[in-house]
Amino acid sequence: MHNNPFAVVAKAGDTIGDLSTPRPIIDEDRLAANIARTQAYMDKHGLNFRPHIKTHKIPALAAQQVAAGAKGINCQKITEAEVFAAAGFEDILITFNIIGLEKLARLAALNERISGLKVVADSSFTVDGLSGYFATRKSLAVLVECDTGGGRCGVQTPEQAATLAKRIGMAPGLTFAGLLNYPKPGAAADVQAFLTETLSLLKAEGIACPIVSNGGSPSLFEAHLVPAASEHRAGTYIYNDRSMVRAGHCTEDDCAMHVLATVVSRPTADRAVIDAGSKALTSDLLGFTDYGQVVGHPEAVITGLSEEHGVIDLSKCDGRRPEIGDKIRIIPNHTCVVSNLFDTMVFHRDGVVTRVEDVAARGLVW
Amino acid sequence: MHNNPFAVVAKAGDTIGDLSTPRPIIDEDRLAANIARTQAYMDKHGLNFRPHIKTHKIPALAAQQVAAGAKGINCQKITEAEVFAAAGFEDILITFNIIGLEKLARLAALNERISGLKVVADSSFTVDGLSGYFATRKSLAVLVECDTGGGRCGVQTPEQAATLAKRIGMAPGLTFAGLLNYPKPGAAADVQAFLTETLSLLKAEGIACPIVSNGGSPSLFEAHLVPAASEHRAGTYIYNDRSMVRAGHCTEDDCAMHVLATVVSRPTADRAVIDAGSKALTSDLLGFTDYGQVVGHPEAVITGLSEEHGVIDLSKCDGRRPEIGDKIRIIPNHTCVVSNLFDTMVFHRDGVVTRVEDVAARGLVW
Repeated sequence: MHNNPFAVVAKAGDTIGDLSTPRPIIDEDRLAANIARTQAYMDKHGLNFRPHIKTHKIPALAAQQVAAGAKGINCQKITEAEVFAAAGFEDILITFNIIGLEKLARLAALNERISGLKVVADSSFTVDGLSGYFATRKSLAVLVECDTGGGRCGVQTPEQAATLAKRIGMAPGLTFAGLLNYPKPGAAADVQAFLTETLSLLKAEGIACPIVSNGGSPSLFEAHLVPAASEHRAGTYIYNDRSMVRAGHCTEDDCAMHVLATVVSRPTADRAVIDAGSKALTSDLLGFTDYGQVVGHPEAVITGLSEEHGVIDLSKCDGRRPEIGDKIRIIPNHTCVVSNLFDTMVFHRDGVVTRVEDVAARGLVW
Repeated sequence: MHNNPFAVVAKAGDTIGDLSTPRPIIDEDRLAANIARTQAYMDKHGLNFRPHIKTHKIPALAAQQVAAGAKGINCQKITEAEVFAAAGFEDILITFNIIGLEKLARLAALNERISGLKVVADSSFTVDGLSGYFATRKSLAVLVECDTGGGRCGVQTPEQAATLAKRIGMAPGLTFAGLLNYPKPGAAADVQAFLTETLSLLKAEGIACPIVSNGGSPSLFEAHLVPAASEHRAGTYIYNDRSMVRAGHCTEDDCAMHVLATVVSRPTADRAVIDAGSKALTSDLLGFTDYGQVVGHPEAVITGLSEEHGVIDLSKCDGRRPEIGDKIRIIPNHTCVVSNLFDTMVFHRDGVVTRVEDVAARGLVW
């Protein structure tokens, strides 16, 4: 629970237009529609859905996702998982190689507390470290992380995947729980080929593979193109953002998060300055060349961010240009990193605040 | 005070190498040397120095800066100023156009509480808004913000500056306190020309100008090239970062902040993955094409960041390459935005933790 006595408080019943800026706000109806739409897609294709909570870090939202049909949740850090375990979640997959005694101690405590904790590993180093710690404790479920082209973590070949799965299966204190990958979008065929080949190798060895977890928001609605997968993981869809619009996964009207900002200066005819900078919008570009989309002003370009200032080029705007004192709304490039900057999140319906949630898993070192 | 029950705690006496990663750490001796060196430069040139606390957001560090000779502090938001006022600071300049009733109410309460509160304005809109609120309250000191080429906020010409100064001087509830600018680095002559001309115009009108506040870390050691200024503002120098090394203001050995990270994967001979991503290092590039400098591995390139993963290209590394399990240190591109992600900051001397400070003004909406 964040509890800063200097926080500017918002509460249910407040009018969004009266809130101090900059502040992200979440549209309740869009949020609910995003949850329902993605869950319906997964249901239609017979895929288990495991939402990644890094996007919101709020247990009440994960509860909405599970109520809609999600099977378990995905965390990226042990401390995030601790927050959600304390809120009653049992099926938690931490998609990270957990390394180092200081982390293993907390991981073991968490494993004692909930029934469905799972982690991943992509090396014998990680597996041996986990086994060394868990050999004398309650057994830990471990998936093999595969690099099917995403270029981040993961074993490089199906053969390596099968070898590591075998090592996990034989390691004291560990159980082999399945395969996991974080793919490059548009490469579903590569993912399917990698997973299918690995599953064949495992079958030949007589190794059961309970979970095949495909993932990623960029490849969200390609999930059905990987029939080898048993589940899909994604986070961003719950709020949606400019990168999701560009990927074709939603429209601007599906973006539940807007960042409210105030125009504080109009130094020239073509320049507006707002009170949202990199400490509100972040510097994440995700391939864009500007820092967010101003709602209702499609030609406005957020060309630069200082920490608490955003500079907007209005030179291409045909209609009414934002004036000093105007409150504007921005669809951020990347919603997950915006969430991470704020201790509380304000929700609204038709401009009236419905609730304020603590971003409970924010700001936690591992 | 941040007080998250799920926080991973560090305490004085801990060994840095045992801390859970990712975590920024501050070298006490470099910190003290950075404070002393910059203050000595300002003293030598007869400039008052007003450190910007946005870099650290920690009252104890501002106290060190003031003890070294700084005259007052610089905040960017009212809520930051509230935190520092509560810690006993009286001379606080908020370098922002304050607009909107919800902010004015807090600003007025703060103005009643401390003796030396000052804000800036660059438009009659801002000035009239301030005057409308402060006319019946304790008078507020206002500086005119000038755009001397930085391209952010500010009046565009000396004539506009003088006109706005006059308007402030005549506005009920306000007193004209001076001029302020945030310059483009390398353009000291332009700044000097703009300020000198404005001061002449003010003098001709018989308007006293108590403060002429020049600023910016990028132009830190050019401050003496603007003799028209009475004070300089800068923040980053206290920790220093990769952008300050590039600017020639310090060396790598003056960077007091390192981000500790663990190598969690070596999927290929040329690729390392660490547990520090955009939620630890931020995506701020500041003109660089990669996301930080790995200490001791000058050829390692942090090519990409996910939220909790950093991908490092090791292909150009000649010496020993970081292996899985290694803890490495990264000099971030931009220290001020890294501070803003963490609720607490760990300080050390020679690898032993000396203190853990609450980043008290972090995460505050205005």
